Amino acid sequence: MKISVLTLFPSYFDAFLSTSIIKRAYDKGLFSFETIDFRTFTHEKHGHVDDTPYGGGAGMVLMCQPILDALASIRTPESTVILLSPQGKTFNQSMAIDLSKKSHLIFICGHYEGFDERIREYVDIQISLGDFVLTGGEPACQVMCDAIVRMVDGVIKKDSSSDDSFSHGLLEYPQYTRPEIYDGKKVPDVLLSGHHANIARWRHEQALKNTALHRPDLLKNQNLSVSDQEIVDSILQSQKK
Amino acid sequence: MKISVLTLFPSYFDAFLSTSIIKRAYDKGLFSFETIDFRTFTHEKHGHVDDTPYGGGAGMVLMCQPILDALASIRTPESTVILLSPQGKTFNQSMAIDLSKKSHLIFICGHYEGFDERIREYVDIQISLGDFVLTGGEPACQVMCDAIVRMVDGVIKKDSSSDDSFSHGLLEYPQYTRPEIYDGKKVPDVLLSGHHANIARWRHEQALKNTALHRPDLLKNQNLSVSDQEIVDSILQSQKK
Repeated sequence: MKISVLTLFPSYFDAFLSTSIIKRAYDKGLFSFETIDFRTFTHEKHGHVDDTPYGGGAGMVLMCQPILDALASIRTPESTVILLSPQGKTFNQSMAIDLSKKSHLIFICGHYEGFDERIREYVDIQISLGDFVLTGGEPACQVMCDAIVRMVDGVIKKDSSSDDSFSHGLLEYPQYTRPEIYDGKKVPDVLLSGHHANIARWRHEQALKNTALHRPDLLKNQNLSVSDQEIVDSILQSQKK
Repeated sequence: MKISVLTLFPSYFDAFLSTSIIKRAYDKGLFSFETIDFRTFTHEKHGHVDDTPYGGGAGMVLMCQPILDALASIRTPESTVILLSPQGKTFNQSMAIDLSKKSHLIFICGHYEGFDERIREYVDIQISLGDFVLTGGEPACQVMCDAIVRMVDGVIKKDSSSDDSFSHGLLEYPQYTRPEIYDGKKVPDVLLSGHHANIARWRHEQALKNTALHRPDLLKNQNLSVSDQEIVDSILQSQKK
């Protein structure tokens, strides 16, 4: 898997590549990564990549030519071209998993007020990170790259990702580590019992409970078992009281 | 406004502070920023900050002591302590605006499998960036800091942010810049007309149309005027055909 990022700020991604789990994956060659500064592609004589908007208004708009020429220089039939844009589909874990199986991802990071609308016609997917506005696409791109690379084969242990929040459509169960008592707060007895079946049942119930309390919307797409549905119903009932 | 980030990877934030709009705001003193490596607070003799989970399972869990001692060292009555967690409220633009008015934000970035559940009892807000899993909280924290700092007074021009996607509950209208024709694709005539009222009306209609097509959920919370509702209805009608 190769990731190419079109950006005006290539050094923004240095920390991403040189930290922790992503660094180890990069050093092992589990993915390759490049940034392309599309400013180097501009035909504008002063090196500009943006211009004022037609019709007036605040801010500058990124021009077609530098971005699309940069894109053409690296795109192949195997590339998936992703534009970060508020009107795209909202990024989620299943998208991260799908994208982790592609051979070449190209991200286009806008900056300033936005980009020329015609650029959209040259991309494969538009993705939004969420309902908020950033100074540029770079931090959002970094988040997506982190989530995607994390799911590339060999980056983390398989049994690690199967416990993730969202991986079973539920939030994760609560985790505890030493000491048994911290500031008067005790680890639940069941976790100290050594009884594996009870621990597994408790964790599953807690994951259901967390999800019902904090993200009931996630349960709508689930085929819950009868006993799981009873747990959820009793939590929602006790909430109403 | 001051931002403090508890993290195991302080250098992750170097690029954030040294790039473009955020750099200018930081250099002007519009916000201050510090990272606190909570590893330096651990009492564990080998410098560890995590341990195996009670009850078994894959991965390591961040311990209470290093994080909570680091937190106690910087927290004041003016601090708002934010834990990045999948079960938190989903981050959005109105949250970014609210948080941009606080005097001191403290972010706790987890890493690895998660953190001891008891840590939640010491925070003010839990926030999630979205329904996906990251190798650590750092990239998500950077996104939130970018969106929040962007809304601090003086960081961007006022008329700039009033055109943002989401700022009026709508996606942004399409933007175009030179040339008039690129690769056979022409800028809409209205934007070249110089007729300000027509341009404003076209942009408003396009914003409505974009939102109705790509994010109809955003329209549910809006009090649309009768004429706007007619535009939305006709778009949704033509979609059904």
